[in-house]
Amino acid sequence: VAQARVAIIYGSPSDANVMGKAGVTLNQFGVGYEEVSISAHRAPRTLVDWIAGLAPRGIEVLIAGAGLSAALPGIAAAHTDLPVIGVPLTSSLTAAGGLDAILSIVQMPPGVPVATVGINAAANAAYLAVQVLSLSDAALAERFATWRREQSARVDTFD
Amino acid sequence: VAQARVAIIYGSPSDANVMGKAGVTLNQFGVGYEEVSISAHRAPRTLVDWIAGLAPRGIEVLIAGAGLSAALPGIAAAHTDLPVIGVPLTSSLTAAGGLDAILSIVQMPPGVPVATVGINAAANAAYLAVQVLSLSDAALAERFATWRREQSARVDTFD
Amino acid sequence: VAQARVAIIYGSPSDANVMGKAGVTLNQFGVGYEEVSISAHRAPRTLVDWIAGLAPRGIEVLIAGAGLSAALPGIAAAHTDLPVIGVPLTSSLTAAGGLDAILSIVQMPPGVPVATVGINAAANAAYLAVQVLSLSDAALAERFATWRREQSARVDTFD
Amino acid sequence: VAQARVAIIYGSPSDANVMGKAGVTLNQFGVGYEEVSISAHRAPRTLVDWIAGLAPRGIEVLIAGAGLSAALPGIAAAHTDLPVIGVPLTSSLTAAGGLDAILSIVQMPPGVPVATVGINAAANAAYLAVQVLSLSDAALAERFATWRREQSARVDTFD
Amino acid sequence: VAQARVAIIYGSPSDANVMGKAGVTLNQFGVGYEEVSISAHRAPRTLVDWIAGLAPRGIEVLIAGAGLSAALPGIAAAHTDLPVIGVPLTSSLTAAGGLDAILSIVQMPPGVPVATVGINAAANAAYLAVQVLSLSDAALAERFATWRREQSARVDTFD
Amino acid sequence: VAQARVAIIYGSPSDANVMGKAGVTLNQFGVGYEEVSISAHRAPRTLVDWIAGLAPRGIEVLIAGAGLSAALPGIAAAHTDLPVIGVPLTSSLTAAGGLDAILSIVQMPPGVPVATVGINAAANAAYLAVQVLSLSDAALAERFATWRREQSARVDTFD
Amino acid sequence: VAQARVAIIYGSPSDANVMGKAGVTLNQFGVGYEEVSISAHRAPRTLVDWIAGLAPRGIEVLIAGAGLSAALPGIAAAHTDLPVIGVPLTSSLTAAGGLDAILSIVQMPPGVPVATVGINAAANAAYLAVQVLSLSDAALAERFATWRREQSARVDTFD
Amino acid sequence: VAQARVAIIYGSPSDANVMGKAGVTLNQFGVGYEEVSISAHRAPRTLVDWIAGLAPRGIEVLIAGAGLSAALPGIAAAHTDLPVIGVPLTSSLTAAGGLDAILSIVQMPPGVPVATVGINAAANAAYLAVQVLSLSDAALAERFATWRREQSARVDTFD
Repeated sequence: VAQARVAIIYGSPSDANVMGKAGVTLNQFGVGYEEVSISAHRAPRTLVDWIAGLAPRGIEVLIAGAGLSAALPGIAAAHTDLPVIGVPLTSSLTAAGGLDAILSIVQMPPGVPVATVGINAAANAAYLAVQVLSLSDAALAERFATWRREQSARVDTFD
Repeated sequence: VAQARVAIIYGSPSDANVMGKAGVTLNQFGVGYEEVSISAHRAPRTLVDWIAGLAPRGIEVLIAGAGLSAALPGIAAAHTDLPVIGVPLTSSLTAAGGLDAILSIVQMPPGVPVATVGINAAANAAYLAVQVLSLSDAALAERFATWRREQSARVDTFD
Repeated sequence: VAQARVAIIYGSPSDANVMGKAGVTLNQFGVGYEEVSISAHRAPRTLVDWIAGLAPRGIEVLIAGAGLSAALPGIAAAHTDLPVIGVPLTSSLTAAGGLDAILSIVQMPPGVPVATVGINAAANAAYLAVQVLSLSDAALAERFATWRREQSARVDTFD
Repeated sequence: VAQARVAIIYGSPSDANVMGKAGVTLNQFGVGYEEVSISAHRAPRTLVDWIAGLAPRGIEVLIAGAGLSAALPGIAAAHTDLPVIGVPLTSSLTAAGGLDAILSIVQMPPGVPVATVGINAAANAAYLAVQVLSLSDAALAERFATWRREQSARVDTFD
Repeated sequence: VAQARVAIIYGSPSDANVMGKAGVTLNQFGVGYEEVSISAHRAPRTLVDWIAGLAPRGIEVLIAGAGLSAALPGIAAAHTDLPVIGVPLTSSLTAAGGLDAILSIVQMPPGVPVATVGINAAANAAYLAVQVLSLSDAALAERFATWRREQSARVDTFD
Repeated sequence: VAQARVAIIYGSPSDANVMGKAGVTLNQFGVGYEEVSISAHRAPRTLVDWIAGLAPRGIEVLIAGAGLSAALPGIAAAHTDLPVIGVPLTSSLTAAGGLDAILSIVQMPPGVPVATVGINAAANAAYLAVQVLSLSDAALAERFATWRREQSARVDTFD
Repeated sequence: VAQARVAIIYGSPSDANVMGKAGVTLNQFGVGYEEVSISAHRAPRTLVDWIAGLAPRGIEVLIAGAGLSAALPGIAAAHTDLPVIGVPLTSSLTAAGGLDAILSIVQMPPGVPVATVGINAAANAAYLAVQVLSLSDAALAERFATWRREQSARVDTFD
Repeated sequence: VAQARVAIIYGSPSDANVMGKAGVTLNQFGVGYEEVSISAHRAPRTLVDWIAGLAPRGIEVLIAGAGLSAALPGIAAAHTDLPVIGVPLTSSLTAAGGLDAILSIVQMPPGVPVATVGINAAANAAYLAVQVLSLSDAALAERFATWRREQSARVDTFD
């Protein structure tokens, strides 16, 4: 197994279905990762301890998914200097269709940014992590560039 | 000075102007309080330590004001069993006129509620704290009841 | 049966399904309650009489659920000095996905606060009531603290 | 002075400026009215008593202005069988630019309608009252028809 | 059959299902009505001619339902001096969950009001029409008052 | 003066300031126009007559600006087969910051489209009219193409 | 087959179902078209080349459908002087019910307008294209006028 | 001058005031950058050429600010494999207070992510770029860590 360079976290095991696309995408590019569910509101001290261990064990990018009050990505960003990618999640309890989660995640104070992607866009969070890691990993950069070229080749005509 | 029974917190000294109405209101009913500014995102460990000390030193109710990603009230509720009253704050940077802060504060997971009041409604947070404290303080309950009766006496006619 | 310390009210029998979670949660902590359905708009005088009797018969906290124009929690707060917890409810007729009910409930004039929780969050209303009652009930406080510690023990790993 | 056929009510004396346009408009058509400020949340019993007296003293239409949680028009409709016209009001404290007040006022349960007009549209509330009263007052109907014809005569060309 | 005192109009035959509740409600109080579907945008001249005939044939109140751009109630109000009650309708094509239709209908210029009720609230439009007609019809007023008293008798207890 | 090929209409003389940019832009490309203010709600019959005369006197494109309930562009489209360009206008009375006007104008039934441009974007309405007229006017097409090329030449560097 | 005068484009083959209504409508009026799917974000260079060829091969109007970030219609408008009609599309991933796509498409800078129609309103985009082409095609204008007259003949009565 | 590792782009020179905070922040950490204004809609070919040159001349991260239809960050992401950070900008013409720009920027298709930060949050875009570059630059990582520690030292007490 590849050494984990990315950590994926979310607050509830019920988020695993959506957030699982991040791991699938990282696998596709051969990027190792770890994945965990810890609630920022129900297990706050456990969360803080887990975040403190990320950089020491070689994690470079953190992907954090959250819905409703959606504090997890911001709290993670407060406790680490690593870049944090936030994934707004929807649920049946959401008041504003996911807009609420986007705004909770994206509106951070200066110095504690969260790189926000689209609603439930766990795959895009992983693509972004790949782009970030590619800056210092030429082989990964080449794999991503090849994949992008394949994507762009397609035209469908319907006349 | 009265022993502090309420703690008031917010993330930035620039919130002092709006949140100051909470203290003014508590004073009006003779309820002691302490007031502090700690950022949940810039000084997260300081915040956790401060919350841990609240119950031991006799605080009964926490009033937390926050805008933008507005994680402070929820994080406070995660670290204490005391009732937490959340005040959504607006700022010139707000994307959705305060709705974003309301939704960040009110949409908490089961078991970690935040008692949310209106936008910038620091005074109402204090009135709510007075109502809560009145349940075990008959003299305070009487002062609040008297004040409410005075409020309700008014009718203005314009014919 | 435990003496009722909390009253639960909502405007329509069709709200019983969602609001029933409040009673279930109070039961879990051994807190007695009463539960009733009275429409603020169809039976306004009945509602006023019912509210007037709450404090005299020992109720300490009122939980009020409402959707659509959602006036019930505020009207209740206008007629009692007890703390009122408001639960915004959704329905198939709702125009703005529950945002409308949140705003109707949370935006109260100074001196008449409603402690608002999340959409359909009847359980969280009950947890908040437990926190408020715990301030003057050490045994209840201990039960709540124990439950919270159990909640926070969980970490799920998916590597 | 003409016998009052319309009553105008709002929750705060600070609403008098906007709501005053209703009276000005009624005067223009010679319709008598009374105007009063009573808070639905701060003086709820006074409000109920005042509403009970409307029909007995000959009032036919009630115009009620309200902002924020905006319960006043609905509460009024709950306590009278007269038609109630609701005017959503904005204020600097409004979370959603007046949409919140519109939704609080317009979303009433079956059997208790409020005839809602636009934000701060006190004049239109009065025009609507005139239309309603015109159904049984041919002279008033004629005055309104004449005024409408004058309005429709105007075309402005800018070439 | 009772002489029609109310006219009900909407833009598409597909609105008949929702708008049909208006007629059912009027029937319940013995109020005669006529009901028609004419599109304001596809048959604008037909609409204008139909509106012109309302007052001459004894119609006193017009109920107009509309969704999407929702111009029908306002256009009707522009072409008649009778009071117009607007019912915002939703459809699967609606962009903003019915808020768009509410705002199209309620935001009328001074002198051309539309009495707006809730989303799909055709029954409430009819109740409002009954209230308006009751001002000059004591027997109808008595039927409505009796019905309201029956509504208000209900309390449901769940202890 | 050039023969008018475009007509510009709006509901109130107070819209002339914003809508005037349409005429300025048409002048810049030598396209003749006429401009008028007629209210769809206050002078509906005048409006219908005016629209009926457009095609007969050689108008090819209609630009219609409207705010609030914003029915004018749709009504115009209902009464003519010419392409209608709608400009959503804001005002101090607008409930939803111009979104309401956009949705009123853009959500038309099949067969009666309105080509909607941005809020207060009268200039863009004129540019669109120029593009439409250019399809059958090679000289105008050339003037527009030249202007576009000049626009695209600019790069500003700030290092 | 008729010579193509309209081109229809969208970003994903999954949009074909909704956007197909544009072609069906153009066929109904005998207007030739071509239809293609190219992603603005995945195949940007292919898109630019395709747009460059439109005017040279006789295309007069471009219909572009897009959802989510919805950049396609605006990018198309940036690369051609032909009139571009934009169709906001919804999807299960949309954050704001299609409002987001409307705003992305309609809010263009001066000189690069997109003629925006309603959500998923591919048919209306085609009707608008027909109106534009009718300005220089009398036979097409006559077919459209005939079709509109047939539409307006319908009145449905339900008494 | 430091070799440029970050490029900053926005569509209009009028954005320079807000976006200038990105450069100020990068300077503070000794990170070289270049800054340019090119409109995605008015100079699309110039933009594509400029993006193509970024990676060859050593740029590692692109910061793109945009308002209104806000296509620039997504278009940039479509034309480069480098990580792109998007800054939603507001303007007086914005329909939805910046929400529209957030949604245009954040809702990208899979494989073409944009790392979105808050409204007008150019400084946070730069902090995020610093975090990304720190992954392969230990000295920069140390400067950022030191700055974060200084930020977190502050507590303000107001008793």
